[in-house]
Formats: sequence, C-alpha cells, structure tokens
Amino acid sequence: MLIEGRNAVREALKSNITINKLLFDKSLEKRKDELVNLAFEKKIKIEFLPKAVLDKRSKTSHHQGYIAEVVDFEYCSIDDILQMAKQKNEKNFIVILDGIEDPHNFGAIIRSCECAGVHGIIIGKNRCAQVNETVIKTSTGAIANMQIARVANIKDAITYLKKHDVWVFGAEIGGENIYKQNLDRNIAIVIGSEGNGIRPLVKSYCDGIITLPLKGKVNSLNASVACGIVVFETLRQREEVKNGK
Amino acid sequence: MLIEGRNAVREALKSNITINKLLFDKSLEKRKDELVNLAFEKKIKIEFLPKAVLDKRSKTSHHQGYIAEVVDFEYCSIDDILQMAKQKNEKNFIVILDGIEDPHNFGAIIRSCECAGVHGIIIGKNRCAQVNETVIKTSTGAIANMQIARVANIKDAITYLKKHDVWVFGAEIGGENIYKQNLDRNIAIVIGSEGNGIRPLVKSYCDGIITLPLKGKVNSLNASVACGIVVFETLRQREEVKNGK
Repeated sequence: MLIEGRNAVREALKSNITINKLLFDKSLEKRKDELVNLAFEKKIKIEFLPKAVLDKRSKTSHHQGYIAEVVDFEYCSIDDILQMAKQKNEKNFIVILDGIEDPHNFGAIIRSCECAGVHGIIIGKNRCAQVNETVIKTSTGAIANMQIARVANIKDAITYLKKHDVWVFGAEIGGENIYKQNLDRNIAIVIGSEGNGIRPLVKSYCDGIITLPLKGKVNSLNASVACGIVVFETLRQREEVKNGK
Repeated sequence: MLIEGRNAVREALKSNITINKLLFDKSLEKRKDELVNLAFEKKIKIEFLPKAVLDKRSKTSHHQGYIAEVVDFEYCSIDDILQMAKQKNEKNFIVILDGIEDPHNFGAIIRSCECAGVHGIIIGKNRCAQVNETVIKTSTGAIANMQIARVANIKDAITYLKKHDVWVFGAEIGGENIYKQNLDRNIAIVIGSEGNGIRPLVKSYCDGIITLPLKGKVNSLNASVACGIVVFETLRQREEVKNGK
C-alpha cells in the first residue's frame, strides 16, 4: 500500500507503520530535506526517482514528491481497543462507524478521533469504507496511531461491548440533547452513514441516542464533522470532571 | 450557476435561492416525484431531458437527474451580518475564513455554521475558495440560509467588527483552552487555511487565540471539522447560559 504527500509520509515516518521503501523525488537527493534525514536515521531505503516515475507510481496524483510503500494495514480486535483504556487508565472511548462509505469522511474521522484521544474505531466488513490509500492520505498520518477493528456484524460488536460495561450511544437526530448526557463513563458512540444515518436494527441495540441541538433550517451536518463535534464534547466533559469543575 | 443532485436541488427549492429553470431527467415526468410537485407549486419552469443531455450540462457529473439553474450567489455586507444578530436579538456569531482554499471544506463549513446558527461568514476576495458549484453542492443547500460577505482585506474587516463591539478570536494551536474562554458574547471566530493556519498579520489583529485541547500524537484536525467543533462549543455555552446552568 502507498502513502503519498509530504505530511502523510512525515507522519508515517514518525509512527510505527512499517515502511518497506520510500520513493522520493530526485531533486530531494541533494537538498537537506527533513524527511530524507529522518529516513536515514530510521535506516529506511530511499529510491530517488524522476517526477515522471513518481507520477506513474502514484495512486492519488498528489504525491508532492514523497511516496512511502508500507505494509498493508493491520486491523486489531475489539479486545485490543478495550485493553487500550486499561493501559491508559481511562474510561473506554470508542467510535463505531455504521456504514461510512466515503473514504475522505473515514480519513477525517480517524484524524478527529486521534486528536480527541479515542481508543479505537470499529467498522463493519461490508457497506463501509475500508482502510485504503485515500483513507490513509486523508487521515494525514493519524491512522498510524489509531486502532481499527473490523467486524462482520456491528450489532454483535455492540452486544459484546455492553457485556464489558460500555454504554453505547447512537449519534443521530431525535434523541437526548448531547450536552445533557453524561459521556464521562465507558462509552462507544455510533456514527451512521452519510445518507441514511444509523440502521434501525443497530439503533435498537444502542443504550440511547444523543443529539446535537441544531439551529438552522437545513440542519444537515457532514458525518465527519458530526463525529468531530461528538468526540470533542466527550473530551470536554472528561477534562471538566478531571479538573473538578 | 448550477445546483446539482437531489438533496441540493430540494434544498434550493425550499430556500430563497432564485431558480431560473430546472433540468430534470425525462423519467421523472411521469413519476409523482416530490421535487416535480414542489416546482409546480412554486411555478418554476422544468425541462425534462434525456440523461445524456443532463450529463452534458452537468459540471459535477453527480446530478442524479436533478439540476437547477440559479442566479449567481449574492454576497452580503458585514453590516448585513451584524444586522442579523439584532433581528434575532442574539449576540453576534460570525465566522471569518482566512484562506480556506478547498471548496469541499468551504461547503462543509457553511453546513456546520448553518446548523449552529451562525449569522454570517466573512471570506477574503483572494487566496480563498469563492462560492461556486462545488461549494453549493457540498453545502447541501445550507448556503441558501447563510449570509456570506466578501472583503478585500480580512484585517480591515476585523478592525470594523471590533469597532462594533465584537470580540475576534483566532482558532489555532497555542492559545487559551477554548473550554475556558467565554464565547457567550459578541464574537467572530477566525479559521485559518488548511495548510498554514491563520496568517501572522491577521492573528495579530485578533483579541485572543482559542485552542482545542488535543490528546493525540498527530493532532491535525481538518479545517472544516475544527470549525464545526468551535461553532458548536459556542452554541453549547450559549444554550447553557440560556438555560441558567
């Protein structure tokens, strides 16, 4: 799999992603480029190639002279995600994606979750964007620090989480005002698909529905923006409690 | 200018955007399509055309059988935005974009601002995505309910707002924790560009910098997600005060 673009490759270099090889623009060979130095330090092989060759290898055509060949993404298990909370001595903080199809949205969600300190993301094997080059690129490297579990069945995953004392909230219209809900406990938040929201069956397995108050006429938030607002509200509540406010 | 896609055209029909003509897929003529009925009610001319013709007219190639020819977007003045707060009897709630270049981000920002009840958005004439078909489409119709002012100089706009008792906050790393800042007053929030954030000169005109606490390693939020989180935090604080919490 390829990671492309200066920022994404920098993050890959700084992360634990296993890089097989770097393909850099020829012009970088003589310049003291930060990423070249970083690669030397980490003893990763670099091939300096003409722009035309990079253009040919590139899958996104936005490589900016930097491509990293990495091993395929390794999904984790739900237990790995639960374990992370224990390691960090934090309450569970999980995001479940029920059918996010746009890889740009998926990448942006990974970015937001990484920023908010989410322990892991659970996605379905079907009807859902999988981790691919676009997702990695859009996540601007955040994916290297995010555990993602892939499950055959979202509702079974919810049942499993509930058995482990995790509260599962669907983020959707028509529920309780999110600002009145206590998110400072073991939680997983379900984000529905761009077009149709959370599937009714999945919703019926949730412990509750949390809703952002909306003040407009159109009132349609982008799925990745909605996810960002919800995970940061969770973070805000936890920080407030921690600071004894 | 064209608005394309079922959702975007529906929102345009329900909004105050002036539609010159609708171009619909031929197959909709006989079906009792909701949007056809809506157009009849509003006495807007419809041309039913074969898919191939729509494909040719389409600029996004995602028309789904629905295209609306609308008059060009009309920008407003900063005074119009200030006036809106008075009309609604609310404290000023303004977003300033200092160099958002990606029309998808701009469209998503319009969506989030509409949902949060922002009174208007101020953009620069240069180095900034302007309202075009992609922005209208990505905003999923929200643009019809959002005032947008276009100014030659962002720092002059900030000076003007300050004269009208508006606090101007830059949203950027390295400032005060946003959750500790009082946003329940007349405010304008400056969002910087995707790559470089707020320009130093513009930043020097701000009354303060507000920052989201970030818990990850990469810690890079998408500009439209960051804007969404900030405008909803403003809304949360205002709702809390209103409810006497």
